[in-house]
Amino acid sequence: MYIETNREIHLKNRPVGIPTKEDFSVVTVPVAVLKAGEVLVKNLWMSVDPYMRGRMLERESYIAPFVLNEVLSGGAIGEVVESNNPAFPVGSKVANMSGWREYFTTSGADLQPLPDTGMQDQAFLGVLGMPGMTAFTGLTKIAQLKEGDTVFVSAASGAVGAIVCQIAKLKGCYVAGSVGSDAKARYLREELGVDAVVNYKTTENLQQSIAQACPNGIDVYFESVGGAHLEAVLNLMNEHGRIAVCGMIDQYNATSASAGPSNLSQLIIKKLTMQGFIIFDHWDGYPAFVEQMTQWIQQGKISAKETVYNGIEQAPDAFIGLFTGQNTGKMLVKLD
Amino acid sequence: MYIETNREIHLKNRPVGIPTKEDFSVVTVPVAVLKAGEVLVKNLWMSVDPYMRGRMLERESYIAPFVLNEVLSGGAIGEVVESNNPAFPVGSKVANMSGWREYFTTSGADLQPLPDTGMQDQAFLGVLGMPGMTAFTGLTKIAQLKEGDTVFVSAASGAVGAIVCQIAKLKGCYVAGSVGSDAKARYLREELGVDAVVNYKTTENLQQSIAQACPNGIDVYFESVGGAHLEAVLNLMNEHGRIAVCGMIDQYNATSASAGPSNLSQLIIKKLTMQGFIIFDHWDGYPAFVEQMTQWIQQGKISAKETVYNGIEQAPDAFIGLFTGQNTGKMLVKLD
Repeated sequence: MYIETNREIHLKNRPVGIPTKEDFSVVTVPVAVLKAGEVLVKNLWMSVDPYMRGRMLERESYIAPFVLNEVLSGGAIGEVVESNNPAFPVGSKVANMSGWREYFTTSGADLQPLPDTGMQDQAFLGVLGMPGMTAFTGLTKIAQLKEGDTVFVSAASGAVGAIVCQIAKLKGCYVAGSVGSDAKARYLREELGVDAVVNYKTTENLQQSIAQACPNGIDVYFESVGGAHLEAVLNLMNEHGRIAVCGMIDQYNATSASAGPSNLSQLIIKKLTMQGFIIFDHWDGYPAFVEQMTQWIQQGKISAKETVYNGIEQAPDAFIGLFTGQNTGKMLVKLD
Repeated sequence: MYIETNREIHLKNRPVGIPTKEDFSVVTVPVAVLKAGEVLVKNLWMSVDPYMRGRMLERESYIAPFVLNEVLSGGAIGEVVESNNPAFPVGSKVANMSGWREYFTTSGADLQPLPDTGMQDQAFLGVLGMPGMTAFTGLTKIAQLKEGDTVFVSAASGAVGAIVCQIAKLKGCYVAGSVGSDAKARYLREELGVDAVVNYKTTENLQQSIAQACPNGIDVYFESVGGAHLEAVLNLMNEHGRIAVCGMIDQYNATSASAGPSNLSQLIIKKLTMQGFIIFDHWDGYPAFVEQMTQWIQQGKISAKETVYNGIEQAPDAFIGLFTGQNTGKMLVKLD
């Protein structure tokens, strides 16, 4: 097998507001010649995730910004198709952070062999990967979830949110969430057993709707949105409530700094804890998480939906779709 | 000894913005006749505290609102001057929550005898009372202070802030604070050994000034102000920093909801924890605190300044002065 060319996605412009297709380019490049000790990986699936929006800005953050006119990167699942490294024989499935391209060569140092679980490959980009691990860690470690808590989840039908809802139900909690369409609301209620769902796009009064969805107040808020959601929920939190801050997607495409909630004094009045986290800090718990989550999936206790775009040329559309509500569950790109 | 009349302060109007003297009235009332088991307490010192502003609004909070045209209440130190209760003989000094009045009768259930420490009575309203306990608990329990941390303290020359600064120095931290006058800045630097002080009223760029005061970033922020302070500090926090939210005095007199910081996503980027607290939740630790703090005072390691107004009729002025920077250290009213 000899691969001559490889398609990859470059960042052409730093997006202003919601990214457009013109901010990206599909570039065909030669594949590097395999050196001693190296392997050639063909990506089968790649992930697009909201956090990538932050890397498209030119600013210091917890992770370096993407470089203009160079290939993007992100989580992917690939297969070794040529190998000069006995640790990764041809046919090995590997998780990697070299998404947004069809092929790449590597010494293997940045590859993780997929655990032997019998699960589908792409699950390791979703329910068994970073999003699932984020849901699990955010609920159990950051928010210190207790049986009987009322849990409110924003972006509740997304890759992380839908797993948060299911874990919280498994742990004996009352669970409510917010979503942006009635179809997503039905999915949560009918397929995931979520107790109450708010469609934030159609409600006239977000706080009132959340209050109705959570008649006993909120003990744990899994925050992925920010903005009006945070302001409404702060007013509805119970004493000693915990807010796990996973993301603030409301602000990722803001073209100017948008004001925060005017009611942060609720932190004092209700004695709340609000804690931000980045899942990479907690990666030592990943093997235990995979074991637990695999069990839940095999027992039929947790299910994971996917929204799949086909072909690397669709990756920009898939990414943009994250900010326009195109996905239910994990947004994935299947490479040819 | 027979007391016929008692002066007390009533709340006449719910203040709009910074309270004025017209929001209060001095009322002379008869002293209730002592019943079996009761004691008559003469207050010697009373406390005015920023949190009382919140109780002047008609809204649900962690503590009930003050009632219009009734006597206010708050921390005070008194002396038993008549007694039908052997647990509180005449001459006993007692801490109580029946401030804003000269005399009151009680069964004694709401009185705490002053611990026998040799300290001045009024210290139990300040460094050895709620403000000292707030500083100690906020730093050690809420913010999980560690030796070598950089600590930034807003309202740093106030009753709580000045104790926060000193405890943090004692624990081997680099300490910087913000205050509203050069005299207060000198007090912190020259008398309390604070490493760097920002005068927020004269700086042209608050964030830049705080950054200069904290060249290694901020690990612990003791938050009593909110608003622009919080926004600036969020940008300067180090990874895994902790924010103990004690108060947000910037907002106590706001006549409309003022927007929060636009950069709460720093909570995620820096993996910060922001925790609000109310000291009453932690009162089981009070005896141990008094023992530790008494020792520090006796060893000359902690000092406490007081700003004293004389006479109950001055209590409204003292209270208003909290919001116009009239106090250094604990603001007290000495009753005649």
